[in-house]
Amino acid sequence: MRAVVLLSGGLDSYTAAAIAKSEQRFELHALTIQYGQRHARELESARAVARALGVARHLELPIDLRAIGGSSLTADLPVPRDRDPDASDIPSTYVTARNTVFLSVALGWAETLGAHDLIIGVNALDYSGYPDCRPEFIAAFEHLAKLATREGVEGATFRIHAPLMHLSKADIIRRGLALGVDYALTHSCYDPVADGAPCGRCDSCVLRARGFREAGVPDPLLLR
Amino acid sequence: MRAVVLLSGGLDSYTAAAIAKSEQRFELHALTIQYGQRHARELESARAVARALGVARHLELPIDLRAIGGSSLTADLPVPRDRDPDASDIPSTYVTARNTVFLSVALGWAETLGAHDLIIGVNALDYSGYPDCRPEFIAAFEHLAKLATREGVEGATFRIHAPLMHLSKADIIRRGLALGVDYALTHSCYDPVADGAPCGRCDSCVLRARGFREAGVPDPLLLR
Repeated sequence: MRAVVLLSGGLDSYTAAAIAKSEQRFELHALTIQYGQRHARELESARAVARALGVARHLELPIDLRAIGGSSLTADLPVPRDRDPDASDIPSTYVTARNTVFLSVALGWAETLGAHDLIIGVNALDYSGYPDCRPEFIAAFEHLAKLATREGVEGATFRIHAPLMHLSKADIIRRGLALGVDYALTHSCYDPVADGAPCGRCDSCVLRARGFREAGVPDPLLLR
Repeated sequence: MRAVVLLSGGLDSYTAAAIAKSEQRFELHALTIQYGQRHARELESARAVARALGVARHLELPIDLRAIGGSSLTADLPVPRDRDPDASDIPSTYVTARNTVFLSVALGWAETLGAHDLIIGVNALDYSGYPDCRPEFIAAFEHLAKLATREGVEGATFRIHAPLMHLSKADIIRRGLALGVDYALTHSCYDPVADGAPCGRCDSCVLRARGFREAGVPDPLLLR
């Protein structure tokens, strides 16, 4: 049974895909959107992760969200440093409608493939408060998918699997390691330094570091 | 007040935009997606329509849905000819998740612009049965938009205006002509012949011809 998994090259989407793979139900088709992100370095990681997962196909599609801007990931705005990742505001790294755009393309590809399962590594616990990472967003997209598509109208139900939704970052890492995930392949930093190394100070680096610390294992990215 | 209008270059989206413009509430920002459509000729029309409307900005964004395929508009499949456009099946010109993708990008741009109004020329009467042209789809997207965005979470409501939803093609044309719309600028044909002229036999041509006939006016495209 085919499924479409959104792969960013980061830690979460790799783990979500590995969980889906471990269930042995799905033939994974991986989708990566080149959205003009500041940390385009993650695209190389997405390719490495797709290879490690042994996906049936890895589709990279450019959708240049820099045309829209408004985010420190897609416009010339500074990425916040040393921010409390548990603060309740939504930081400037929020990319408007990103997961809506990504899931829309994933839905289209799924319908073409005859797949009814979409996998996304969103998490609403150790995250930056992005609205499109929450369970109510995922539920609304599932509802939309049924109404938006020929297969939905004809009776099929598209399921959006978000297996990390309620896990802490440490639990995500523990789960991934138990499944043999190689986190050395991933890239999380929003604002990598010149040689591609993580900055250590953006939300994404801070959340990742806390996750590895709480999981009691070293981050292989920092051992190189 | 800013609004984002989806412009394809066709008759419907121009009329929907003209209706929105006539209400004198909106500063229109037009979005056209270059999705790899067979009838890329419509992109020239979208530019002409945007100029005629005097939009504040016209953004053209490539999202190559040929990577996904599955439609006779985006893959090497024949466009149906002389089909009964009132037949209940969904023809191969259906592009999976097209309006979901388009509205997602429009939503992202709207949020960046500080706009809460999106305008789309979908119609569920004289149409080809595409699921993402129906009122239940639009309602589901409105619901999603509130949950997907920072502004939605902070209390704003995004409205998806679909002023043509319940009009016949003849009524759309009458309405447009009353507003001074110049249909000579538009392009509707899915499968234009070599010089860009309409084929006259695809669903889109057949519906357009019936609309002008029922409205009792000649199609200016056919007078040239």
